[in-house]
Order: sequence, then C-alpha cells, then structure tokens
Amino acid sequence: MQAAIRALLEPLGQVSDLNHAAGLLGWDERTKMPPRGAAVRAEQLATLARIAHERFVSDELGRLLDAAEESLDGAAEDSFEASLVRVTRRDWEKARRVPADLAADIARAGSQSERAWEEARERSDFAAFLPHLERLLELQRRYVECFEVDHPYDAVLDDYEPGMKTPAVAEVLGKLRDGLVPLVKEIAASSVEIDDSILYGEFDAESQAALAREVAEAMPLEPGAWRLDETVHPFASAIGVSDLRITTRYEPDFVGTALWAVIHECGHAMYHNGIDPQLERTPLCRSVSLGFDESQSRMWENWVGRGRPFVGRLQAILARHFPDRFGSVGAEELYRAANRVRPSLIRVDADEVTYNLHIILRFELELALFEERLAPADLPDAWNAKVNELLGIEVPDDASGVLQDVHWAAGAFGYFPTYSLGNVIAGQTWELAREALPDLDDQLAAGELKPLRDFLAERLYSHGGKFEPAAMIERLTGGPLDPEPLLRQLRAKFGELYGLT
Amino acid sequence: MQAAIRALLEPLGQVSDLNHAAGLLGWDERTKMPPRGAAVRAEQLATLARIAHERFVSDELGRLLDAAEESLDGAAEDSFEASLVRVTRRDWEKARRVPADLAADIARAGSQSERAWEEARERSDFAAFLPHLERLLELQRRYVECFEVDHPYDAVLDDYEPGMKTPAVAEVLGKLRDGLVPLVKEIAASSVEIDDSILYGEFDAESQAALAREVAEAMPLEPGAWRLDETVHPFASAIGVSDLRITTRYEPDFVGTALWAVIHECGHAMYHNGIDPQLERTPLCRSVSLGFDESQSRMWENWVGRGRPFVGRLQAILARHFPDRFGSVGAEELYRAANRVRPSLIRVDADEVTYNLHIILRFELELALFEERLAPADLPDAWNAKVNELLGIEVPDDASGVLQDVHWAAGAFGYFPTYSLGNVIAGQTWELAREALPDLDDQLAAGELKPLRDFLAERLYSHGGKFEPAAMIERLTGGPLDPEPLLRQLRAKFGELYGLT
Repeated sequence: MQAAIRALLEPLGQVSDLNHAAGLLGWDERTKMPPRGAAVRAEQLATLARIAHERFVSDELGRLLDAAEESLDGAAEDSFEASLVRVTRRDWEKARRVPADLAADIARAGSQSERAWEEARERSDFAAFLPHLERLLELQRRYVECFEVDHPYDAVLDDYEPGMKTPAVAEVLGKLRDGLVPLVKEIAASSVEIDDSILYGEFDAESQAALAREVAEAMPLEPGAWRLDETVHPFASAIGVSDLRITTRYEPDFVGTALWAVIHECGHAMYHNGIDPQLERTPLCRSVSLGFDESQSRMWENWVGRGRPFVGRLQAILARHFPDRFGSVGAEELYRAANRVRPSLIRVDADEVTYNLHIILRFELELALFEERLAPADLPDAWNAKVNELLGIEVPDDASGVLQDVHWAAGAFGYFPTYSLGNVIAGQTWELAREALPDLDDQLAAGELKPLRDFLAERLYSHGGKFEPAAMIERLTGGPLDPEPLLRQLRAKFGELYGLT
Repeated sequence: MQAAIRALLEPLGQVSDLNHAAGLLGWDERTKMPPRGAAVRAEQLATLARIAHERFVSDELGRLLDAAEESLDGAAEDSFEASLVRVTRRDWEKARRVPADLAADIARAGSQSERAWEEARERSDFAAFLPHLERLLELQRRYVECFEVDHPYDAVLDDYEPGMKTPAVAEVLGKLRDGLVPLVKEIAASSVEIDDSILYGEFDAESQAALAREVAEAMPLEPGAWRLDETVHPFASAIGVSDLRITTRYEPDFVGTALWAVIHECGHAMYHNGIDPQLERTPLCRSVSLGFDESQSRMWENWVGRGRPFVGRLQAILARHFPDRFGSVGAEELYRAANRVRPSLIRVDADEVTYNLHIILRFELELALFEERLAPADLPDAWNAKVNELLGIEVPDDASGVLQDVHWAAGAFGYFPTYSLGNVIAGQTWELAREALPDLDDQLAAGELKPLRDFLAERLYSHGGKFEPAAMIERLTGGPLDPEPLLRQLRAKFGELYGLT
C-alpha cells in the first residue's frame, strides 16, 4: 500500500474509533445504562461527536487527502484506494460546508423539539408543536443554503442517499403509488378475510426472550460476533464488523415483534457483518445508504421471514416456546396470519403492502413543505386528506395522525423516503437472489440461510460504502432503481393470498 | 465562577468524557462484548487513550492553567477552584514528563508480557517469564529517570498514592508486619478450630445471581445509579458519579464471592457515588488514591460485611436463596465461617489477617528489585523464603508462588502496597465512624447502612481527589497514616474468635 494512503488511514481510523465508541455509548444508553447516568452520558456523546467532527474536517486531513489522491496513479475506480479517496473527499467537502454553529443549533433545536413533541403527542396538541416545527424548518432552510443544489430537498436527501436527486425519488415513489393504490383497493374489496388472532394473546417475556434468541441464532450471523438485548425502540448497531448489537422489545400481548422485528434487526446486522474486514476503521465501513441498509432488514424480515418456505421453520420455533398456543397451528395458518393486509393509521404497525403508502404520504408532504407550497400550520389538514386519499380511512386526532412519528420532531427531513427505497431495493435484490439460487425456496424451507447470505455478502455487503446508491444498483442489476420487481412480488404474493385475479 | 476557571473546565471536561468513554468500553469488553469484537475494541481504546493524553498535556491547557492560577487570588486551599488548579497542575506536569514513546513502549511491553505470563504460569515456568520481567524492569528504570526522586520506588508509588514516599510506606508496612506475624502465630497455635464448610458445596448460578442482587440492593447506593453484571475478574467502574458498574462472578462451589466480593465492589461504587456532583467532569472526580479507594471496598466488605452485627442480615438473605443450606444456620455460625484464618499460598484467597503479609512480602521484594539488591533471576528463591518466613508454609511451585499475580506481568510496580494501605486507612476510618456513630452496631444489625455511608460521604467521599493521601488522613484524623487502629481491631476481633489472651 502507498505511504500516502497509509498516512490518510491513520486519522481516519481515529475518527472511526471515536464514532464507534459513541455508537457503543449510545447502545449502552438505550439498553444497559442506569437511568441516573443520562446527564453525563449526553456530555460524553457530545464530546465524542465534536472531536470526531473536528478531526475529520481539519485542514491537515485535507492535505493528507490531496497526497493520497496524487498517489492513486490510475488505480481502478472500485479499488480500495480509489474508493477510499473518493468517499473521504466527498464526506470531507460536505462536512466542511456546514458551520459548526449551525450544526450545533440544529442538534439543540432537535433535542428541544423532541421533548415538546412528546408532550404535544400526549395531548394530541399540534398547535403546541407548531413553533418547534417552524424553527426546525427555518434551520433546514439555512442548512440547504450551505450547498449548491437544484432542489432544496436534494440537500437533506443526500445525507441519507448520497448522490440521489429529488426528481428520481419522486419518480420511483410515484410509480409505487400508482401500483399500490389499486392493489390496496382490490385487497379491501376481496371477500377473503385473514385471521391473525393467533399472534395476539398473553406471551410471557421470558419465553419470548428465549424465542427471540432462537430466531436470531437461526440467522447466518458470524458466531461470537453479536448479542441480543432488550430496549424500548428496537435498533441494530455495529460497533465493529464483528461486534453487532441487535435489540428488540417483548410485547406482552403480541408475539410478532419477538419474531419479525428480531429478523429485521438481524438483517441490518448481517449487512454490517458482511462488510470486507479490510474496510474496518475507514469511511468505507458502512452500508451504501440508509435505503440499502433498510433493504436488507426488510428483505430478511418480509421476503424471508414472512415468506411461505421459512414460515414453516418459524412455526416449529414458536411451537417449542409456546406449545399450548402454536403446537397445533399449521405453517399455512401462520403464513396467512403473518401477511394480513389492513389499512391502518399508524405507520409502524402497517403491513408490507400499505406501509409504502404511509411513506409516500410523508414524502409528498415533506416535498410540499420544502417547496413552500404548504405552510407548517396547514400540515394536519393536508395529512388527514392524504390518509383518506391513499388509505381510505379517517384520522380521528393528530396523535394518531401528523404527530405519530418522532422523525420531524428530531429534525430528520429526507429520512422517510429511505424506508420505501429500501423496499424497492429489497425487491430488486430478491429477484437477483432468486435467479442466482435456483434452490432458494428449498434452502429457506430447510432453514439453510447461508447460501442467501453468502450471495448477498459477495454482491452487496462486502463492498461497504464504496459506491453511491445509483452506482451500486447499476453494478447489481445493470439498470437503475426500479419499483417493478417489488410491485410484481407484492401482486403475486398478496394476489394469491387474497384471491385476486 | 471566574472566566479563567470556566475556560479551564472546558478541555478538562472533554478529557474526562474521553476517559469515561474508555471506561465504558472497558466495562463492556469485560462484561458484554461479543468475543470477536476484541481486535477493533483494542484500537478504539488506544485511540481514546491517545487523544485524551494529547489533549491533556497540550501547551494550550498549560496556558489555561496559568490563567486559572492567576485568577485564584487567595482562594482557600480546599475551595473547588484552588483544588482544581493544584491537582490539574500536578497531573499535567507529571504527564508531560513521560515521553509518548516510552509510555507506548511500557504499554506494549506490558501487554506482551501479560500473554507470556499466562503461558508461564500455566506451565509453572519462571524462566520463560524472566526475559519479560527484565525488560519491564528496564523500562521502569527509564520511567523513574523521567522524575526527580529521592528513591526510585517513589516514582511508581506516586502513580497510585500521590505524594507518598517510600520510607513512609516502609515504616507503616513494617509496623504492620511486626504486629501481624505474632498474631498469625498465636492463631495458628490456638486450639480453636473454625469450620467454614457451610460456605462450600453446590450453589446454582441463578440463585447466586439473585442473592448477589439482594446483597447489592441492601447497600446504600443511589437508586437508579448502578447495575450489577457478571465478569471473570470482578471490578467496579464509575462511568459517572451516578453511573456505577459493579461486577462479580459466581463460583459453582463457593457462595462467599456472591456475598463478600459483591459488597467489596459496592464499597468502591459507594465511594464514587458519594463524590460531590460539582466535581464531575473534572480531574477532582476521583478517589484520593488507590489506597483510599481500596480502604472503602475493604471497610464495607470486612468491617461491615464480615462483622457480627451485619452477618445476621446476610444469614437471612442466604436463607432466602439457599433455604436447604442456610435455613437452619445461626448467625454466629456464619460469622465464624466468614472469619476463618489460615495461612495460604494464594493472595486472592487469603483471609483478613494473613492478607497483609502477602502484600508486605511483595512490597519488600519490589523494593529489593528497585534498589537492585535482588536480581530478577533470583526472585523465585527470595519469594519462597519470604513465604516461609512470614506465613510459615512451603511453596510447591512458581505457579502458586511468584507467578500467581498478573500485576508485575502487566508492568504494575508500586501497586501492591496500596492494598495494605487500604486496610490501614479502613482501620482509621472505622475508628472515626465508631466514635461518630454511637449506635453503629445496632444500625448495622438492623440493616441501616445509610448513617455510616452518609458519615463517610461527608467526611471523605464528597471531597473526591481534592487532597493527597497524607493531607486527607490529616483532615480526617488530625494525624498521619497509622496502622495501630487496624492492628487493635484485628487483635480484638480475632483474639475473641480464636480465644487468645
């Protein structure tokens, strides 16, 4: 390796260490920390973030980057060295554009607003949240001004989907909308009723924890490289390529979380576990984008975990931990229960089909806010109208409407579309896997998940963040982002389940 | 507060945050981390240590320190501001004396030597460890040369007991030796036999964990500010004044660890939990010294936990978790079992009386090595002779002799005496507490530990690291470090138990 590349890797390794140390502090805060530790933990996290930022945006790092770039000497675009320089250069230039004061203002306003949102949601009081939302949008405007963009939304989208542009996302989500709205209507009109009551009842936490552990152990994660813990809002976190923290929660009256939410978080963990260890401690040691990360959590959760072949395995696991309830339930009955479609108010409870309509709704509203076609004060009316238009239901109050999600309150705009982009990418990678693995269904039915994992690791996970989303999709499929595979798969699966023609 | 003090607190807060983040990473490594995470964790810890050191020894911090010192303007010696400047100045000047290369060499050699020691102990092969020991002692010589000291051992002692000098420690430990050797002989000659077999047997891990939890909950720790986890080598760690991590292990054939080792670690945690919150994120947020820290773990473990009044409470807890074994055991029987004295080869298994002889032995050998009166190659013979002289037993092999402890292998010289200094200080603070709390025995018997804790917090814990050991002992007792209270207490307690005159 060139001396100039080695010299660049030194400070980048330190920045990575600081960020991953912060990742562990965050994991601990949400899983283990004694509650009285919160105040000093916030200081510790702020210090790690500040020092990591300072070191990353330094002039010295710019000089090392220049030297490394000169040393490349025609290295291939997808080589470690060229990718390192390209991605670091992009991150470095972007990070230097945002003044430290503005970044601090955004962080502070998000934190204040989150507390205000909690109270406002509690009382279903949008008016109390409105001034915070207005302040956050004003800060977003100042953030957008730091960049040269064709569309203001491009600036925030780029934080989650590097290089992706607003018109491209609008086109993909528009096609998705056009495909899903009629499908949801057909399902609603179907005479088939799916009964998912077997998933509801009383499930003791201890048996659920044992169930969740067995489910996680059934996933092809590297042995000795992960752990599973309880938390309030489940997440997965990578402290290293071989140090993965999966979290879940156990709902006393619903067993689905201990099954599918665990597979979802394992999907994120498998992605990071599959990154080439050579990329560790570099800016390349990450997923392509939030959408790509989500594509894998959703592919493992929905395509594998809610697919007919693997549901048979889950039935056997359920029967071991809750024999009274699941001992005599057939795999087909569980498959149907796992795939009930029903338009509902709350995004996080939505099924695989209607989920994307929740996202499209939020994306369209974010766009209207950023284009100043919609005033923040008019957001609840616009929300309620769109829910009716897309899902055909009425919103009874703002708590189960516009106030339901934390994202906007935390200042995260441009984040929501990544969920549906994830589903779109999952549809495309699933199609690839099916073609590459002719015995996939038999393997899943036998609980052999490693061939699927190895295929995805080779084609996607191992490359980490070397490529931007558009380039990665092109490398995978030879074409662009395309919602058609997802729509085809949903129509086939739910058409069969709901007896559609 | 003066602007110059506030300006100094800013970088000191960041250094504290980095050190405590490292503390959490270390806790996680020893309690939660998936084993495959070890390699990248070592990098993360090295980066945090390096950045904390760089920031602390910077010229910029020196300038802030000068300005803060000028702003003091006659502030009282024990004020927050004067203490902050005094302690920071001392740490800063000391840290700047050690070249970064030497510090790195010592860290690296210690890590290599620890691995060599593990193998050498396994095979009881001192010759295999000898070159590492020689290298470590050579590095210690170079370390000592960084300082201007009257005695080479002063330099290493000062790392653990700030300001303490070798002759003072030699005098205290010499008196302790003179008092303990005859006491141990008298006990050995006594016709009284204490039977501690009730503490040995089969104890399932789950019941031991519940027992340990109840014991920890009986200690006057701040609610919501601590947690208890399993590890291999128990320790306590403070991530913040209100974020304390207590650890223990459960031995399948001995229940004593789940009782007294937990109280020991809670003692460390109570000390840090009692530090004035104003000192958080400053160099004052620590115990006076390692000896002071150990004084409190041992006072809670031995004076409270193995004292007659509180043993009655422990008997009731034991009976709840192991009713078959302890349901019909009397408190007096448990008290006697908890206090059996028997000279033995292994320090960590030693009782309250002989423990100090293990320490005195190590201190005398360290001194001989540092004064170059003893060659490292002659260490095993010297060790075996001293064990025979002090404890009256023969050492069968180096694994249960000179190779038993990790300290020297890790490059920690000057550390051992702090264990006995801790016992000496525990004896002095216990005498103070007895005088101040006339109902102490009744309170302990009733499980009311808060009055004792509050007394110690006010007099000792709250001051953190404001004062050096000698000054703190003077503030507490009006006199110097004195082994007489410890010797009086041991003679009284064990004289009664063993029927000595």
